[in-house]
Amino acid sequence: MSYFTEENSEEAVSARMGENVSPRLRQIMDALIHHLHAFVKEVELTEAEWEVAIDFLTKTGQICSDTRQEFILLSDVLGVSMLVDAVNHRAPDGATETTVFGPFHVEGAPERQMGDNICLDGKGEICLFQGRVVDLEGNPIDNALISVWSDNYEGFYDVQQPDIQPPFNNRGIFRTGPDGRYAFRGIKPVAYPIPDDGPVGKMLATLGRHPWRPAHTHFMVTADGYSRVITHIFVEGDRYLTSDAVFGVKKSLIIPFEKVDRANEAWQADFDFVLCRQKQNKG
Amino acid sequence: MSYFTEENSEEAVSARMGENVSPRLRQIMDALIHHLHAFVKEVELTEAEWEVAIDFLTKTGQICSDTRQEFILLSDVLGVSMLVDAVNHRAPDGATETTVFGPFHVEGAPERQMGDNICLDGKGEICLFQGRVVDLEGNPIDNALISVWSDNYEGFYDVQQPDIQPPFNNRGIFRTGPDGRYAFRGIKPVAYPIPDDGPVGKMLATLGRHPWRPAHTHFMVTADGYSRVITHIFVEGDRYLTSDAVFGVKKSLIIPFEKVDRANEAWQADFDFVLCRQKQNKG
Repeated sequence: MSYFTEENSEEAVSARMGENVSPRLRQIMDALIHHLHAFVKEVELTEAEWEVAIDFLTKTGQICSDTRQEFILLSDVLGVSMLVDAVNHRAPDGATETTVFGPFHVEGAPERQMGDNICLDGKGEICLFQGRVVDLEGNPIDNALISVWSDNYEGFYDVQQPDIQPPFNNRGIFRTGPDGRYAFRGIKPVAYPIPDDGPVGKMLATLGRHPWRPAHTHFMVTADGYSRVITHIFVEGDRYLTSDAVFGVKKSLIIPFEKVDRANEAWQADFDFVLCRQKQNKG
Repeated sequence: MSYFTEENSEEAVSARMGENVSPRLRQIMDALIHHLHAFVKEVELTEAEWEVAIDFLTKTGQICSDTRQEFILLSDVLGVSMLVDAVNHRAPDGATETTVFGPFHVEGAPERQMGDNICLDGKGEICLFQGRVVDLEGNPIDNALISVWSDNYEGFYDVQQPDIQPPFNNRGIFRTGPDGRYAFRGIKPVAYPIPDDGPVGKMLATLGRHPWRPAHTHFMVTADGYSRVITHIFVEGDRYLTSDAVFGVKKSLIIPFEKVDRANEAWQADFDFVLCRQKQNKG
């Protein structure tokens, strides 16, 4: 029996796990202990720095509520959320790439007819979104569900402003027919900052980082037999594309929004969703 | 400009830090980002596992209060607290080894006279603690302050039972004279479990670990010109010495408690505190 020392610290902690711990939990805890200890040793964390970390984590937990999840925000701004997405969704070349789910999706949005306008308050620059849902060979996918959600013209989701925006403002679900086509009206999305009045916002400021996300519209596309795609489309030219606070941007998801009616500030965005069969997904 | 990918994830996040970030903060964040991302990649953390982690961290923050610090407990049971202690207090051979401070020290304990009894409620097996405070060459240290704190006969500190135990029960401060000697009466400490009704307790149970700490008495010894020593002495023979829930045990801190009066269950524990001059401390 050897007691805990600086040298054997990882082994001392890992060895304490019981025999009935599942192999997967043991693998995760062994890796967690290794990296936690290696971090402390590499930087020779001082006691004062450790206290800052304890205080930060405590405040991050305590600001969480039914409508705010500061630990997800922390995961987002450290690139962990995007990394978890990446290792779990290694799609084949040609399939639509995924990005972070984000905290603003809600269940129960209404299914609408093709061509409908999801912008219920009439505010913002109108945009026609259209395209197809296809498989890797370009064949249309029938009966695919396209769920869309977006911030409003001021950068807020309906759930952030329940007293101002109508329910399900800038949200909707659309179902494709045999041609795989979809089309609906919404608004050209605008950039907005993630909530930055809490511990994570203070951390970003200390690190010299801004809290902004480039303008984007969220999509979740599902179809029987195909891997679900959770993604955004980003507005080409947005000033925050190269500095998204949560690292969500992928080049394939940036598309031109074309101004089709200069008088009425009306836009058009064309994007095809390419789904892979569930067995085709490497992840 | 390259966007975030699984391959470049660490660089993508680290590169976002501003130019005015201090070198030390940059070093810490670079190492943190490296180890966080390496952990996710090595275990290929699933989205469901990520959700468990977010939920665990949130609950750990939310159970914290003025009298409970669950994140310190988490740091303790993962060996991080002991590791931070180790990298900050690499004392020369022969100096008294340090261990975790723990959450139960309080300021303002009374200074007492040598020989006094710090057990104010008269409960527990009485023990005479005695020894000397000396330097690395064995010379006595005059005017050293020895602060002692201990659980009671049932394993609770006074601050955990403010309605049951008298204030400063099993606490006191003693000041050495020119001979460096100290002596006081207290109780032979007993083993106790760390708080295990929260997220950390549930984690320990899932990992097949018990929450017990072996019996110990806390000491903080200070003297002008010497490095402060924060340590415990442990009771030789305790069943939890090899499985302390917080990894605080060091061999040099385990001492025999001798039964000196079988009729009255009275014990004696001899321990010398060896302090190093502040410049002698490697840490």
